[in-house]
Amino acid sequence: MIILGIDPGTVRVGWAVLKTKKQGELVPLNYGCWEIKEISQGQRLNKIATLFTQTLKQHQPQVLVLEKVFFFQNTKTALSISQAIGVLIYLSQKHKVPYLELTPLEIKQYLVGYGRADKKEVQKLIQCYFSFAELPKPDDTADALAVALAGFNKIKNNKLSF
Amino acid sequence: MIILGIDPGTVRVGWAVLKTKKQGELVPLNYGCWEIKEISQGQRLNKIATLFTQTLKQHQPQVLVLEKVFFFQNTKTALSISQAIGVLIYLSQKHKVPYLELTPLEIKQYLVGYGRADKKEVQKLIQCYFSFAELPKPDDTADALAVALAGFNKIKNNKLSF
Repeated sequence: MIILGIDPGTVRVGWAVLKTKKQGELVPLNYGCWEIKEISQGQRLNKIATLFTQTLKQHQPQVLVLEKVFFFQNTKTALSISQAIGVLIYLSQKHKVPYLELTPLEIKQYLVGYGRADKKEVQKLIQCYFSFAELPKPDDTADALAVALAGFNKIKNNKLSF
Repeated sequence: MIILGIDPGTVRVGWAVLKTKKQGELVPLNYGCWEIKEISQGQRLNKIATLFTQTLKQHQPQVLVLEKVFFFQNTKTALSISQAIGVLIYLSQKHKVPYLELTPLEIKQYLVGYGRADKKEVQKLIQCYFSFAELPKPDDTADALAVALAGFNKIKNNKLSF
């Protein structure tokens, strides 16, 4: 199974592609962060759509896992990120890739067992799990790895099929 | 000039296509409301994308005018509508149709001169302006006509070029 995890944003979008090995272990195939330098929201959404479509074609994931906008302080940012999420969901449907949305709480629960874990704990787990000498930078990349791994755990745990 | 106005939503999407005549007057070419009956958000976004793309191809508007999510009481609804707006903005960019977003306040300002006007006043203006015997139903359709007309007034007023 190949899983694409995305930490959505409009300026930086973290992404991670994981693959299951026979032993049930997950290995990272590829990961990174799209730095969106376009100025208008329209151009940014268009750029994200292009990069996302390329990634779908290159890695052919069976499932897309997205971090859901849930708690937020800045309304403008939340609405703007939701626009980007809308584009990702639409394109995943268009390319017939099912998607799963996880709240930040669920991501923590499926990684370290409790929703109130702090960011450092999640990052430590990601570093250990994938045997990284150093945590991938920027945080958006590490977050996308966390999203993908949590999605995989949710799928296993709930015996979801894709 | 042909203007496409959209009152975005995920269950009902109002739309209106207006055309300028030589006298500077605007006439409605076509308008209506897409009733989105799909159950999942992914399917709804996909359906909206299909209908929107068909409308762009059919009417070839020079500009898209959208009502912006601005004030809201229900966070979940606002985020969900923003996802639909993201899809509309992305597709307008893909088809090289520039877009304009107007807040509810701006829409009222550009129609009846003050932002605190109530919905009835706006509806009355729409009915008079387009000489409708009755206001088109549902409200989403009338709202889309208001969005398109306000967008046109903003373009004229600010001498924007498209």
